[in-house]
Amino acid sequence: MKRVSGSADSEGHLRSVGSAIRRMRESQGFSQEELAHLAQIDRSHMGKIERGERNVTLLNLIKIAQALASESSTLLREAGL
Amino acid sequence: MKRVSGSADSEGHLRSVGSAIRRMRESQGFSQEELAHLAQIDRSHMGKIERGERNVTLLNLIKIAQALASESSTLLREAGL
Repeated sequence: MKRVSGSADSEGHLRSVGSAIRRMRESQGFSQEELAHLAQIDRSHMGKIERGERNVTLLNLIKIAQALASESSTLLREAGL
Repeated sequence: MKRVSGSADSEGHLRSVGSAIRRMRESQGFSQEELAHLAQIDRSHMGKIERGERNVTLLNLIKIAQALASESSTLLREAGL
C-alpha cells in the first residue's frame, strides 16, 4: 500500500471512495472493526482507507465490496468515480 | 505497486480488469504506449496491469479511465467486478 503523495484531485478521489465505504458500512450497521474483519483487512489500514489516506488497491476494494455484499464497480459509482 | 501474490480469485480479478482496459483501449484505437502516455503511467507498468500482473491502485485506475474518456466505475463494470 502506498502513502498518498498526489495532487489535490487524487486526495479528493481517495476521500470520496473512503466516504462511500463508510456510508455503505454504516447503512449496514457494521463497525469499522467488523468490516475490517469481514474484508480481512488490517483494522488500522481500513481506517486509513476510510479517511482517504491510502491509495486503495483493486483487490482490497473488491474485498471491501464483497464484505458489504456489493460490487467494486457499485462502490466506485457510489463515490462518484 | 505490489506484485501479485494472492489467490486464484485475485489473479482472475486482475486479469479481468486488465482485459477490460485492453478492450476499451483497442476499441478506441490506442496502442498500449499511447494509453500509458495519456494516463501518465510507466509503459512497462501499463503492460503488467493489462496482463493482470499487478494489483492496480485506485488512482491509477482513475487515470486509465480518464485517458479512455470513461470512469473507473464503468471500467470495473466492464470487467464484471
